[in-house]
Parts: sequence; C-alpha cells; structure tokens
Amino acid sequence: MDYNEKALEMHEKWRGKIRIETPCPLESRDDLSVAYTPGVAAPCLEIQKDPEKSFTYTRRGNLVAVVTDGTAVLGLGDIGPEAGMPVMEGKCALFKAFAEVDAFPICIRSKDVDEIVRTVELIAGSFGGINLEDIAAPRCFEIERKLKERLDIPVFHDDQHGTAVVTVAAMINALKVVGKEIDRVSAVVNGAGAAGTACTRLLMALGLKNVVVCDKQGALCPGEKWMTPAQAELAEATNPERKRGTLADVIKDADVFMGFSAPGCVTKDMVRSMAGDAIVFACANPTPEIFPEEAKAAGARVVGSGRSDCVNQINNVLCFPGIFRGALEVRAREINEEMKLAAARALAGIIPEGELSEENIIPSAFNKAVAPAIAGAVARVARETGVARI
Amino acid sequence: MDYNEKALEMHEKWRGKIRIETPCPLESRDDLSVAYTPGVAAPCLEIQKDPEKSFTYTRRGNLVAVVTDGTAVLGLGDIGPEAGMPVMEGKCALFKAFAEVDAFPICIRSKDVDEIVRTVELIAGSFGGINLEDIAAPRCFEIERKLKERLDIPVFHDDQHGTAVVTVAAMINALKVVGKEIDRVSAVVNGAGAAGTACTRLLMALGLKNVVVCDKQGALCPGEKWMTPAQAELAEATNPERKRGTLADVIKDADVFMGFSAPGCVTKDMVRSMAGDAIVFACANPTPEIFPEEAKAAGARVVGSGRSDCVNQINNVLCFPGIFRGALEVRAREINEEMKLAAARALAGIIPEGELSEENIIPSAFNKAVAPAIAGAVARVARETGVARI
Repeated sequence: MDYNEKALEMHEKWRGKIRIETPCPLESRDDLSVAYTPGVAAPCLEIQKDPEKSFTYTRRGNLVAVVTDGTAVLGLGDIGPEAGMPVMEGKCALFKAFAEVDAFPICIRSKDVDEIVRTVELIAGSFGGINLEDIAAPRCFEIERKLKERLDIPVFHDDQHGTAVVTVAAMINALKVVGKEIDRVSAVVNGAGAAGTACTRLLMALGLKNVVVCDKQGALCPGEKWMTPAQAELAEATNPERKRGTLADVIKDADVFMGFSAPGCVTKDMVRSMAGDAIVFACANPTPEIFPEEAKAAGARVVGSGRSDCVNQINNVLCFPGIFRGALEVRAREINEEMKLAAARALAGIIPEGELSEENIIPSAFNKAVAPAIAGAVARVARETGVARI
Repeated sequence: MDYNEKALEMHEKWRGKIRIETPCPLESRDDLSVAYTPGVAAPCLEIQKDPEKSFTYTRRGNLVAVVTDGTAVLGLGDIGPEAGMPVMEGKCALFKAFAEVDAFPICIRSKDVDEIVRTVELIAGSFGGINLEDIAAPRCFEIERKLKERLDIPVFHDDQHGTAVVTVAAMINALKVVGKEIDRVSAVVNGAGAAGTACTRLLMALGLKNVVVCDKQGALCPGEKWMTPAQAELAEATNPERKRGTLADVIKDADVFMGFSAPGCVTKDMVRSMAGDAIVFACANPTPEIFPEEAKAAGARVVGSGRSDCVNQINNVLCFPGIFRGALEVRAREINEEMKLAAARALAGIIPEGELSEENIIPSAFNKAVAPAIAGAVARVARETGVARI
C-alpha cells in the first residue's frame, strides 16, 4: 500500500485531524444563560478566588498541549512549525483515541530556547499538561528543564521519555526471555540525542550499570574533545570501564544493543561480535540501524525495531496516552522518573510471563489494556512520590 | 431561574465546555499508517514546500484562537487569565454551534502589550484566525494594531468590532423605523473604551457625521487635558461642533444615544431632553445605562440593550460566528472595515422591511439564517476588496 498517496488524499479530505466540539446544549436563551452570559460569571469568580478550580470548571484538567518548533519532525529534520502540524494533529488524535485525553497542537515559530520557553509558560494556564514533540537536541533538553522549573503541570518530551519508557518495557521482557539480569549485562546505546540519552538514564534508574553510549564520532568517554556539554555529562555517568573507540569497537561482547541513530549503521559482523543471547533494538525510523531479520541471522536472540511490519514494535503510542491519562487524573505537578519506571513496568507486565517469547516482548499498540494499566500505575506512583494534587 | 447556581453545577458536570475530537479512524495499523507514521510525512513535506498548504492538510483553515489576558472579562474586570477561561470556552462553544467554526481558548499570563503580541505571533501558525477577547482598553487597541501588522490571518477584537457590527445593524433598522437618515442625525456615544470607539468609527464609515463621544469626564473634544492618546485621536475625528461638557449637556436634542459604559448612568430626564423619535441603545452589561422600559417611558421611540429579557437584544453572538465563517472560507488575510459593514448590512437585512417595528430591529440569536447571511456577505466583500486568498 502506498501510504504517502493515501495519506495526502485522506488529509485533504479530513481537512485536519482534530475538531473542537462542545458538550453544552446551545438551543435556547436559557442554555446560553448557563453556558455563557450571565451564568458563566459564577465559575469565573470561583476560579478567580482559587485558580486550582480551573481544573474543575474548564477543560484544563483533561487538556494537553502538543508543542513543537518543527525542527526534528519524524526523520524529516527541520521542516518548520507549520509543516510539523500534521504530525502534531496525529498525536492529538492518538491521545483521544487511546486514552480519552484532549490534546491540542501548538506550533511555535521560533528556534530560540528562551522564547519557546516563555511562550509555553505564558499560555500554560489553558492546559493541564505539556507534551513537547519533535524539537531538536540539544535544545529540547534545555527547553524541558526550564519549563519543568517554571510550570507546576507535567512537562514531558515524548521523543525522550516516551521512547525511553517503551524501550525499557521491552528490555525488561527481553532480559526475562534471555535469562539475564539488568545489573549484570553490558549495554551499548548508539545515538546520544534525545531518545538515546533518555533511554540510557531510565535504564540506569532501573539498575543498568555497564552502558556505553556512542555518537557519530564514537564512544562517549570523559576527556573526548568532540562532545557537547550534554554528552560530556552523560559520559561521566556511563562507560564505567572508560572505553574509547568506534561503535564496532565497543559493541564487542555486549549483551544489549539499542540504536536511536542512523539507518544501516550496524553491520551483521557487529552483531556477530556481541555476546551470546544478544538483544538488539534498532529503533531508527523508518529504516532501522539493522533490519531485525538480519540481526537474527547474525545471531541476535531478541530483536525489536520501530517498524510495524516487524516483530516487537517499539512504538511511543504505547506510552504517551496512558502516562498523561494517569498524570491528569491526579493533577500531577510533574512526571518524575519513578512514574516513568512505573509506566515501563506496567507496560511490560501486560504480557503474562507464560506468554513471553523472543517474538512477544511488547504488547500491540491496539491492546486496550495498555493505557489503563499505565495510567493506573502512573497515578499511584504520583501519589506515592507526593506530586499528585488530588 | 438562578443562573449562577445552575452554571456552577453544569460547569462542574461538563468539566469544561470544549472537547477535542478526531474524524480519523484509528483502529488498525493501516489507519495509523495513514493518519500518523509513516504516511503523515507526505502532507508534512507538501506544507514544507508551500506553507499555504497548511490550510488544506491541517485544521488551520477552520480554526480560530480565542485569546485573552483576562483583564476585562464580562463586567467583572481584571480577574486573571485562568478565571477568564470559562468565558473563552463558552465563546468557542458558540463558534461551533452557530457557524461550525473550530475555536480554541488561549489565556495569556501577561499584561505586557509586546509580550502578548509576540506570544500570539509565535503560535499563529496553528490557527486560521485570531479572536481577541476581554482585553482591557487601551491595551486592546495596540495589541490589535500590532498583530494586524504582523499576521496575514484575520485578527478581530470581538469586544470592539463584534459589538460595533451588531450595533450598526440595529441602528440601520432603527433609523428606518423612525424615518431618519444616518448622515443627518446627531448621535451621542457614552463610553470611549473598546466597544464605544469601534462602534463610533463603524457608524462613521456608514455615513454618520455628527457624533459626540463621552467618557466619565465628559465629552471628548480636542484640547481636553484628561484624554488618553486614543481618546484624543477619536476627539479629532468626531464632535464637529466641538461641544464641551457632561453627558447631560451633550445628550440634549440628540437623535441617538448609544451607551457602552456604566450601569444606570443615564436618567429619564436625559432621555426626555433628546429630540423626538429618539433611539436609545443602552448596552452596559448586565445592568444597562437605563432600562429599556424606563427609556421608553421617558419618550424614546426605539430602545435596545444587551439583555436577553428585553426587546431588541444587541448580542455579539449574532456577529462573530458568521464573520469568521466568511473570512475562513476565502482565507481572508484580514477583516477590514468594508467586511464589517457588509456584515452589519447583512444582519440588518435578515428582517424584511415589512416586519420592521420598534420591537423588531434585530434578529434573534437563534435565527439560523444569520450566520450564513453574514458569512456570505463577508466572503464576497473580502474578494471584492482583494484580501481573499482563494
């Protein structure tokens, strides 16, 4: 099926993938007097007395902004804010379809960190959460950090944390399949951008100790001159044996490979050089670092990728709807590491242990149990960690 | 009926008056591949080549932002951005119910003109039009002016221009009822804020020559020291006889009074001092300058107010849905004076001449003919004046 042609045809027919609807009857003067003037003054005054009431009397309590600057849209790169909108609208459609979250796309015509931060800060009173999307690294890190400092609603960069949660869920189950322990495996992450960095940190929160992160120039290691500040920080926290060299050098004898990098950058020989019962997640989209079947042929035991036409699809849609559903339900002030880990464990736990296999480590995107399970876990841990408002 | 109590109950039940819905099926991998990845890349790339295509492939072409800073909400004053949201959501609900326009509420946490302007400018790529709402004068004038300079989508401050269009429509018909001509009547406008200023200017565009505008301190007249810069500009353009004094002084012998000011500031004696067959529109909300029945008792022949429980309700909801419907349909770059006058004439024309009477100068808000008639006229004049893109 030619998805491009079909997508153009359908997008023109739909004229956009979101609609604003209202649940209020507006058929009579009485209706108008309740939903609009003069009655509407009453909720306004209640919110003036206590701005928290905006979560009760307006849609804010269920509403997420999907915010982009259009600089890292899919694999297309910096295509501009307007051109990023079909992806943002798609995301909003998924939020609704998978977890009954209302989401609205906001594209920002700026590439300046402080200007983007200030814009989101100024409009945040309309929303209960902020989903950052397709913003290029390293700007995305700084934007997220500053917004988290300034806002008391969840700020979540899906390309980092959504990807990390789903990858960690898949890893939890893959390690069970191969019978290895997270704190004893050696791992290599290729791609020190948004997804690779977040995934590395979340796996370390889960117990991973021996991990080397690579970027185009090779292994991140303290002292390497080519690293960005964010990469230097990551280098300090990883690579316990202070390995240097190329991906081909450091992948030797590794138990786990995770790629968030470039098409075709992993060869069969590299996979062959890994330890026995290797796990290979090749998540570059749409063309992976190595196709799953090739990795299998080269000896990997469990494989995963971002592709819907291969086994074990590692797909963000498994995460973001449920994680915001849970955060909104308890009016969480933030989405912290504990909540992300709880989401990953809940997602991994959807597959009963008896059904785990090399071909079945992650649920289907259409499994209706996923969003409620993640939402429940996220809400519970938000309360336990003291970031829930209700 | 106690609208306040009912409104609180219903707002809590509704949990907000807007919902985001999607027209796309999202039940299968094929669905996902068309509405989201990988298919969505095709409309993204088309928009990158030509940003105008965002009106075809995203909801932008039917989407209006309802923007406030919460400084002049209803008659409640500066209650803050979050507290203004129930009104903004109500407005969005009306946009949809009355003209199938998708509208989304944005409250901005700033009172700084340039910061508000910059915020709207940066997010304007998500929208096909901007409806400014409940922003205090004189800041609203500057915000609107700057946004019009910077954006190529319509920017419309409803408190100014929506009110002006509906008042002008009512005036067109009221003048027919009393048999007077717009270019020969003398008029007094009380309230030199957003609504009064816009209404004065639109009536002048229609042909009104003899108009005096008053504010709390009295008649606007060149040389008065207490005027703001905006009022001084208005004084130059109005008050041809350079009258000075209080409202009670200048209302004497006037054919027309229009109030956009304060409850109860017009007495029966003032109305008695007007010319015969006087027209009195007392639009302060919810308590008018003088109640219509009192004005009638004091000799006015045609009366109007903002109240739904009196005759001749001058209500913005008659205007804004249709005016944006028309502007969006031809992708107008702006909403100019000609389009506003066309909207007022179309609105006035809904009532057949034979049915015009002292009690019937303006259609009901629920008259289904209103929005299409206004939309048609606005779209036609947008094309005639060269501001339509299609």
